Amino acid sequence: MSRLRVAVVGATGLAGQQFLTALADHPRFDVAVLAASSRSAGKRYEDAIRAASGASQWFCTEPLAPEFAQKTVELADDLDASSVDLVFTALESDVARTLEARYAEHVPVLSTASAYRYEQDVPVLIPGVNPHQLPLLRVQQQKRGWKGFIAPNPNCTTVGLAMSLAPLYERFGVESVIMTSMQGVSGAGRSPGVIALDIIDNVVPYIAAEEDKVEAETTKILGRLVDERLEPAPFRVSATCTRVPVLESHTESVTVGLGRAVSLDEVRAAWDEWGREFVSLGHATSPRRLITYLDDPYRPQPRLDRLAEDGMTTSIGRLRADSVLEHGIKYVLVSHNTKMGAAKGVVLMAEELVRLGYIG
Amino acid sequence: MSRLRVAVVGATGLAGQQFLTALADHPRFDVAVLAASSRSAGKRYEDAIRAASGASQWFCTEPLAPEFAQKTVELADDLDASSVDLVFTALESDVARTLEARYAEHVPVLSTASAYRYEQDVPVLIPGVNPHQLPLLRVQQQKRGWKGFIAPNPNCTTVGLAMSLAPLYERFGVESVIMTSMQGVSGAGRSPGVIALDIIDNVVPYIAAEEDKVEAETTKILGRLVDERLEPAPFRVSATCTRVPVLESHTESVTVGLGRAVSLDEVRAAWDEWGREFVSLGHATSPRRLITYLDDPYRPQPRLDRLAEDGMTTSIGRLRADSVLEHGIKYVLVSHNTKMGAAKGVVLMAEELVRLGYIG
Amino acid sequence: MSRLRVAVVGATGLAGQQFLTALADHPRFDVAVLAASSRSAGKRYEDAIRAASGASQWFCTEPLAPEFAQKTVELADDLDASSVDLVFTALESDVARTLEARYAEHVPVLSTASAYRYEQDVPVLIPGVNPHQLPLLRVQQQKRGWKGFIAPNPNCTTVGLAMSLAPLYERFGVESVIMTSMQGVSGAGRSPGVIALDIIDNVVPYIAAEEDKVEAETTKILGRLVDERLEPAPFRVSATCTRVPVLESHTESVTVGLGRAVSLDEVRAAWDEWGREFVSLGHATSPRRLITYLDDPYRPQPRLDRLAEDGMTTSIGRLRADSVLEHGIKYVLVSHNTKMGAAKGVVLMAEELVRLGYIG
Amino acid sequence: MSRLRVAVVGATGLAGQQFLTALADHPRFDVAVLAASSRSAGKRYEDAIRAASGASQWFCTEPLAPEFAQKTVELADDLDASSVDLVFTALESDVARTLEARYAEHVPVLSTASAYRYEQDVPVLIPGVNPHQLPLLRVQQQKRGWKGFIAPNPNCTTVGLAMSLAPLYERFGVESVIMTSMQGVSGAGRSPGVIALDIIDNVVPYIAAEEDKVEAETTKILGRLVDERLEPAPFRVSATCTRVPVLESHTESVTVGLGRAVSLDEVRAAWDEWGREFVSLGHATSPRRLITYLDDPYRPQPRLDRLAEDGMTTSIGRLRADSVLEHGIKYVLVSHNTKMGAAKGVVLMAEELVRLGYIG
Repeated sequence: MSRLRVAVVGATGLAGQQFLTALADHPRFDVAVLAASSRSAGKRYEDAIRAASGASQWFCTEPLAPEFAQKTVELADDLDASSVDLVFTALESDVARTLEARYAEHVPVLSTASAYRYEQDVPVLIPGVNPHQLPLLRVQQQKRGWKGFIAPNPNCTTVGLAMSLAPLYERFGVESVIMTSMQGVSGAGRSPGVIALDIIDNVVPYIAAEEDKVEAETTKILGRLVDERLEPAPFRVSATCTRVPVLESHTESVTVGLGRAVSLDEVRAAWDEWGREFVSLGHATSPRRLITYLDDPYRPQPRLDRLAEDGMTTSIGRLRADSVLEHGIKYVLVSHNTKMGAAKGVVLMAEELVRLGYIG
Repeated sequence: MSRLRVAVVGATGLAGQQFLTALADHPRFDVAVLAASSRSAGKRYEDAIRAASGASQWFCTEPLAPEFAQKTVELADDLDASSVDLVFTALESDVARTLEARYAEHVPVLSTASAYRYEQDVPVLIPGVNPHQLPLLRVQQQKRGWKGFIAPNPNCTTVGLAMSLAPLYERFGVESVIMTSMQGVSGAGRSPGVIALDIIDNVVPYIAAEEDKVEAETTKILGRLVDERLEPAPFRVSATCTRVPVLESHTESVTVGLGRAVSLDEVRAAWDEWGREFVSLGHATSPRRLITYLDDPYRPQPRLDRLAEDGMTTSIGRLRADSVLEHGIKYVLVSHNTKMGAAKGVVLMAEELVRLGYIG
Repeated sequence: MSRLRVAVVGATGLAGQQFLTALADHPRFDVAVLAASSRSAGKRYEDAIRAASGASQWFCTEPLAPEFAQKTVELADDLDASSVDLVFTALESDVARTLEARYAEHVPVLSTASAYRYEQDVPVLIPGVNPHQLPLLRVQQQKRGWKGFIAPNPNCTTVGLAMSLAPLYERFGVESVIMTSMQGVSGAGRSPGVIALDIIDNVVPYIAAEEDKVEAETTKILGRLVDERLEPAPFRVSATCTRVPVLESHTESVTVGLGRAVSLDEVRAAWDEWGREFVSLGHATSPRRLITYLDDPYRPQPRLDRLAEDGMTTSIGRLRADSVLEHGIKYVLVSHNTKMGAAKGVVLMAEELVRLGYIG
Repeated sequence: MSRLRVAVVGATGLAGQQFLTALADHPRFDVAVLAASSRSAGKRYEDAIRAASGASQWFCTEPLAPEFAQKTVELADDLDASSVDLVFTALESDVARTLEARYAEHVPVLSTASAYRYEQDVPVLIPGVNPHQLPLLRVQQQKRGWKGFIAPNPNCTTVGLAMSLAPLYERFGVESVIMTSMQGVSGAGRSPGVIALDIIDNVVPYIAAEEDKVEAETTKILGRLVDERLEPAPFRVSATCTRVPVLESHTESVTVGLGRAVSLDEVRAAWDEWGREFVSLGHATSPRRLITYLDDPYRPQPRLDRLAEDGMTTSIGRLRADSVLEHGIKYVLVSHNTKMGAAKGVVLMAEELVRLGYIG
C-alpha cells in the first residue's frame, strides 16, 4: 500500500498535539507538513511549543516523536493543500471557517473544529457509526465544486452518546434521550481551559454551548440520507452538561426511551454485536471493540476504563430498566474525550475513508 | 422558654459530631448526655475520639465545644431515656433498629439512621416540607404504645430533591422525575468512607442502595396522610447516584414532568415563595430561605453555594424547559449533605416539633 | 474615632475582591472609590465583574456587599488620590510601578504588588512582625518628597515563613533556613492562574520567581534599620516552592538552624508568646493569636486550619529537632495566602498604621 | 534458560496485585502458587478479590491476567515453600515476621514488608544501587542455618531518595540530607488507606513511622559491608513526610551537603552515568535508565513522569546550588511508589539475583 502525505494544521495546540500522537509511526500516513499560526511559523516544532520560561508545552503523556520535534512549522495561511493527500485540522472555529474551505478545494479535510458541523451537506462522522452518511461527502464535493471535502468529527461529548445509541436506534428505535454528563477538564483545552480554582472540590453545572451541540449532533449523526439530504433522527435529546474534577474522559448518565419493549439482555447483545465488521477491518487505530459492556456495578469509571482499547472504545455499565420513560432503560458510559472523542477518532475515520476510496 | 434536656447517641461518629456542632450554644436544647458504644463509654469525649496515634478524630471544621470535650461518654445500651426530653441518634442502621425503639418507649427519638424510614407508621421528615404528615407520629405512639416516637430524616440525597419538588408538586403536580446525582465524599462517612485512591481524578457511577432509598423516600415524603396511612405521591422517580471528587454537598441534575403546562417564571415563583411561613418562625437553626434560586448559569456549585445559609438552603439554578418529558422542566440543585441533609436538619426539625408540642 | 476615606485600586481582580471582602462593614475605613482599568471604568462594579456569558466573576466565598455592587468603577489612571486618606492597590506589578508612585505623592499607598518591594527605602510589612522598620516610611517620604508613602506586603509564601521565624530570630538567633512549600492554586490568581489539567493528581515543582522573592523578602523583613537603611538579617534562606492540588493556603516544611541550643519547649514558648501585645490592641481585622501551635501530629492541615482566626493566624505543628543543621529544628506551617497573606493582611497593617499615626 | 517456579504470598492485597501485574507473561518466572489468608484460601483468585457487592477488587489499571484469575488461592500458613524456587511476599509486617522466616528456611524470600529490614544480617535492596551488600545474604544463610534468605525492599519513599544519592555518595561523598516528601495516596494501600475526606483539597503533614524508616534505610542502603557487618553510611538524613492529593508516585524536595565542591554539571553527569552497566544487562523488568534528568524547570511532575520507563526510573530535575549546606545542592525527584518503589522493583531485584546465582 502506498503511503499518503498528510498535513496537520493547528499542530501546536492541544488537539494538534493529539493528532501528532495518533500519527506517530502510522503505517499509512506520512506527516509531510506541520502548520500553525504566524506565532509558530518558521520555528522548529519543539521550539514553537516552548514557553517563554523555556518549559516545553507538550502536554500529551506520550512523548513527542523526534521526527516531529525537528520539523519546521509552516504558516497555515500559506499551506499549499494540493501538495498533500489529506489535511487534518485542529483549529479554533473561526479560523477553521476560512481555512478548511480553502484546503477542501484541493483535498479532503478531516477536522476537530465545529465550524462546518451544522451545514446541510456536511456529515458529522464517528468511525463505525454512520457510514451510510458518507455519500453526502460526494454531494458536498459536487455542490461546492471542490476536489476535496470537509468531514468534521462531533463534539467529544456527543461521541460516546451517539456510539451507545447507534445500535439501540438501529435495532429497537429510540424515542427520547435524557443525558447528564460529567466531563473531564481536558475537553476545555488550555487557552485557558478550566482553571483549577474553579474545579477542585467542585462541580460546574454548565458548559457554554455544549448542550446544544450534543442535542443537534446526536440526531444528525443517527439521521438518514434522503435525496442527498440528511434527515435528523426523529427523537428528542435533552442534555445537561457539567464539569467535574476529572482530567480526561467524559462520564454520561443516560436514560433512553426505546421504540419498543426490549429485555436488558437484548440491549447488551445489541451493544456487544455492534461494529464487529468495522473492527474486523483491522485499521491501525481501531479498537478491538467499539463498545465494551462491564458487569461490575461500580464501572465504568474514568480512571479505570478511559484507556481501555487505547481510549478508542466506549465503556458502558449499570444497565437497568427505567421507570419513567416508555420502554425506558438507563445506563452510564465513559468515553475518552481526547482519544476516540477527538484527534485519534478522526485518524481512525481517515483510515476508513482511505479504504473506501474517499481519500487518496 | 424552658430549656430541654437532650441526649446525643452515637456521639463519637461523624454524624454524631455534626449533632454536637449543630447543638453547640443552642438556645433551647441542653446536651445532657453523650452516649456511644462500649469502645467509648466511660471516657471523656475528647479522649473517646482520640486515635491510637494521639490525633484527634474530630472532623468538623467548626471546633469542638469545650463543654462537650470534657463530658464523660455513657454507654448507649444503658441510656435511661426517661432522664431526657429528647434523644438524637446517629447510629448505624442495625444498632438503631434496637436502641431507637427502646428509647422511643419513653421519649421522642429524632434520627439520621435509615432503620425505621420505611415503616408504615413512621414519617420521614424534612423541615418545612411535610408538616401534614406529623399526625402520623401520634398514630405511631398509639399503635406502638410508646410515650415517644421515632422520626427519621431522609437520606442526604433525598433532602435536596424532595425540597425542590415539594413546591412543584403542590402547585403544578408532578408526573415523573429523572435525577442524576454527583455526590460528595462526606456522605459516605469515615468507616471507611470513600478511599482517596478510588475517587481522585474519577467518578464512581454507583452508590450501594442509594437509588432505591431516593426513589422510595421522595414519594413517601410528598405523600398524603389518608386514614392514618401514608399514601406515597403517585409519580415515578428514576435515580442514578454517582460519587465525584467533592468533599461536601450533593449536586443533582433533575428532569421533571409536571402535571400541567407551566412557564419557567411560575416555577421560579413557586420555589421563591416556598416555605416563607416556616422560615418566618425564626427557629435557631433555620435558614432565611429554604430554597435559593440563582440566575447565574454557572451556579449552583458545591464550593460556592453549599454553605449558603449555613448549609441549610437548597440552591437551585439552570432552570430550562425539557424537550422529552411532557410539561418537562430541568434544573440543577446543590444541597449540603451534612448540614440540612443530616444532623443539622434534624435539629431544625426538632425545633419545629417543640413549637408544635410534639416534644417537651 | 473619625472614619477614613479609602480607595481600592485594581478592585475587579481577585486581590481587589479580597480587599472588598476585608473592608465590608469595616468600622474605620469607608470605601469611597473603586478604581480599575479602562475595561471596567464607568460601569457599576457588579457589571464590571460580569463575564460575557452573564456569569458573575465574583470569586470570594463571602458574598459581594451590596454597597460595592452598585458603586461606579473609576479609571485608575485618573484617580485623584488627594480625595481619599489612603489607597489600597491590588495591581499587576508593571501598572503598580507607575500608579503607586503617582498616588503616594499625595497619600499612603498600601499594596499587594511586588513593584516596590525591593527598593532600599521601602519596607515590606507584616502586621506584628516588623514595626521596628516603620520609621523607614518617614525616610521614604523625605527622600522622595512625597506626602504619602508606599508600603507593600510580602509575597504570600513569605508571610507564614517570616511570621514563624520572627520570634525565633529575636530570641535565639537564626543561622539558616531550608524551606519547601506546597502552595495552593489561589496564589496564582485567575489570569489564567493554574490550569486544572496541570494540577489535578499532580505536583508542579516550580513557581516562576517565587523562590527568589521568598529568600530576599524574608531577610529584609527581619532586618535591622541602621542609619536610615535596612540591613537584611544575616542568615541564608534556601527555598523550594511547589504547587499542589489545594485551593487555598500554603503549607511549608521548614528546617531552621538556630543561633544557639534551645529546647523544643522554649521554641513553642517563643511562638506562643509572640505578638501578644499586638493582638491585644484589638484591631478590627486582628486574630486573637498571630501564631497558633497545634500538638496533634497530623496538623496543621490546609483544610482544617487555614480558616482558623478567619485566616489571620499562622498555624504551626510538628516541631522536632533536626539532625542536620547546627541547633536545628524543623516544623510545618500553614498560612492563608489570600487572607493574612494578601489583602486582609494589608488591611490589618493599615489599621495599625492608623493607630501609630502614619495614616490619617 | 530454565523457568523458575515462584509463589506470591499476600496475593490478594494491593501489593500482591502489583506482584501479579509485574509477573504477568514474565519470561523467567512462573507463578506456580498464589497464597493468602484464610479469608481467601480455597477460592479462585478472581472470586477471592470480589467484594460482597459483587464488585471486583482488582485495583491495578493493567487488567488481571486470565491465568491468575482462575487459579485457586492457597493458605499462606500451609505453603510448602520447598515446592517453589522463590517466594515473593506482600504481607502485613506482623504476619511477615512469622511466615517469611518459615519460608526462608527453604527458599529465597523477596519481600515488600518491613518486618526484617532493620535486622543486622538483612540487606535492604534496591536494584542497581547496593550490589556490594549482596554477600550479606550468604552471611544471613550461614548464621540462621537457612537454605534461603530474606531480602526486603525499602519503604517506597526511600527508593527514589537512595537512588538519587547513590551516585553522589560514590563520587563526591554526602555529608547530610534534608528531604521533604509529597507522597501519593496509593502508598497507604487500601485497608483503609487514605480517606478521600482527609486529602481532597488538603495536605497531611505526617505519615506515621515514615520519617524514621526513610532516615534509617537510606544510610543502611548506602552503607559498607565490613567484616560481615553493615556499617551505615556516616551521614545524617532529616526527613519530613507529607501526603498530598496525588494518586501515585512520590515527589521529594531534597537538599544535600556533598563531601566536596562540585559543579552542577558534575552532578548531572554522575546521575547520567549511574547504572549503565546494570541496565545494559537487559533484565525483563529493567528500565533503560535508572535515573532520568529533566532540564525543564517544571519537571519532574507525578502525572507526566511517574510512568516514564514503565515506572522504573527515578526522574530528577530542578538541580540548583543550595546556599545553606556546605557544598550544598538541591533538587526535586519523582519516583513511582508502586512500580520501582514496590513489587515491580522487587521483581527486578529477583531477576538480578537469578543472574548472580543467589536464586535458582
